[in-house]
Amino acid sequence: MNTPNYIEDFTAWKQAFKHKYSVTVRFSETDAFGHLNNTNAFVYFEIGRIEFFKECGIAATWFSEKEETIPVAADLQCDFRQQVFFDENLHVCVKVAHVGTSSVDLHYMIVNGKSEVCMTGRGRIVQVSRFSGKSVPWSDRARGYLNQ
Amino acid sequence: MNTPNYIEDFTAWKQAFKHKYSVTVRFSETDAFGHLNNTNAFVYFEIGRIEFFKECGIAATWFSEKEETIPVAADLQCDFRQQVFFDENLHVCVKVAHVGTSSVDLHYMIVNGKSEVCMTGRGRIVQVSRFSGKSVPWSDRARGYLNQ
Amino acid sequence: MNTPNYIEDFTAWKQAFKHKYSVTVRFSETDAFGHLNNTNAFVYFEIGRIEFFKECGIAATWFSEKEETIPVAADLQCDFRQQVFFDENLHVCVKVAHVGTSSVDLHYMIVNGKSEVCMTGRGRIVQVSRFSGKSVPWSDRARGYLNQ
Amino acid sequence: MNTPNYIEDFTAWKQAFKHKYSVTVRFSETDAFGHLNNTNAFVYFEIGRIEFFKECGIAATWFSEKEETIPVAADLQCDFRQQVFFDENLHVCVKVAHVGTSSVDLHYMIVNGKSEVCMTGRGRIVQVSRFSGKSVPWSDRARGYLNQ
Repeated sequence: MNTPNYIEDFTAWKQAFKHKYSVTVRFSETDAFGHLNNTNAFVYFEIGRIEFFKECGIAATWFSEKEETIPVAADLQCDFRQQVFFDENLHVCVKVAHVGTSSVDLHYMIVNGKSEVCMTGRGRIVQVSRFSGKSVPWSDRARGYLNQ
Repeated sequence: MNTPNYIEDFTAWKQAFKHKYSVTVRFSETDAFGHLNNTNAFVYFEIGRIEFFKECGIAATWFSEKEETIPVAADLQCDFRQQVFFDENLHVCVKVAHVGTSSVDLHYMIVNGKSEVCMTGRGRIVQVSRFSGKSVPWSDRARGYLNQ
Repeated sequence: MNTPNYIEDFTAWKQAFKHKYSVTVRFSETDAFGHLNNTNAFVYFEIGRIEFFKECGIAATWFSEKEETIPVAADLQCDFRQQVFFDENLHVCVKVAHVGTSSVDLHYMIVNGKSEVCMTGRGRIVQVSRFSGKSVPWSDRARGYLNQ
Repeated sequence: MNTPNYIEDFTAWKQAFKHKYSVTVRFSETDAFGHLNNTNAFVYFEIGRIEFFKECGIAATWFSEKEETIPVAADLQCDFRQQVFFDENLHVCVKVAHVGTSSVDLHYMIVNGKSEVCMTGRGRIVQVSRFSGKSVPWSDRARGYLNQ
């Protein structure tokens, strides 16, 4: 298996994750090939991403209908290294790779109970106005959280 | 297989459906038992229900954020008669069973390519205010559509 | 709100649940009306049901491809009492209402953080042969677990 | 918006798609931000990919439990260019970018009713043994189809 181009040194890359969230593979997430359907990797990335944004205090305003800004995915990618099956307990790990003016590049790693890396991934999230759809720069506070 | 209590005469019940919509079973909707995951029956019911509401001119206002009313499911049930598999072409059939002041009881039937009835179901939809959550009576026009 | 016909006395019915499992509403489970999409109630029921079957020792054989029997949903129903929103922590409660020769009638209750009952439901699960599709009676051991 | 690195010339890239499949955005696929939840882009890619494999005669054996080989996703990525909303009719376009010994690199483009490109993407699919998980080279026939 080749290392994806968003990872320089795999050992160093793995060790830099400090945020991790648990998810258990649901039966409704499997498919007729007997394993987790590939589309659910991105559901798990979204869970990890939102938990991370909640943890660092940024999500609070996004999910209030009164607030102007929401996060949107600009791009997403996933590399599948290991099949995952019903009822496995996984860790969804998230870290900040780069903070832009109104965006953030997040990296993802999903690890199974045997500490095997099952999926890796990345994606850029942009903060936009709910109304105009245009990008909205991070507040100093949000930028501070993301750079921690 | 017993006839569910919302069906009096199965032959007559089947013949009274005039609205039908096509759906093809997606691979991501199957599960590790090799068939359609049971939860997707309700996804198919929702597709049929919304297509029906669009067809009878009621849905137009619900999906505009400026409008006050939205439909909510009060209850839903499904009887599974026949397994369904990847790539099957199904018909989702919908009919009005009863029109209330601000609600409608819909019946559902899902039929496969061999004209076998795979699922039957029913459920009450209530029109409510997006803001107060309280029920909102049908307009005369909506009631007219539903009683057709 | 009327009491569904599978509940005699609501207070007594609520108190008889001994098995409960946690679930947090995912963002991908919400819909454009801003709340949990109705179809996910049945995803939560499936999670509760499988956790219950695991807890009582019955699920072990179902998810091994070498085993002959699998559980299938014969019917399912849900009554929606209270809207549910992103990030709410819910308890999915499960209990046995009736044990048949090769089937079991399960009842469900989903409760939010304010101890409000958001959904109630029921459904019959039948143990069938993976190969013939015919019903397979419970073993004495399985029956023992279900009747506890 | 930058052009993703898997696209050299966007105009030429767009014109080279010959396979397209229709999909209509379901209500259950939207989220509380009022648009299509990002995870469903990959559901649409899977639909397009499987339709393409069916059309070119390769899928037939994969979905029979007697057959040895299944396709698995090695990687997947999506660039989001334009928001998509409930009830939009989309075209999911698929083309072969590169054929390997036992894999194929597919490109995806999702276009809305105004001929706007809403998402682009790519991903490598590998044919593997259902039993050993090891890659299985394409037959001459399958390679012929993919190179057409």
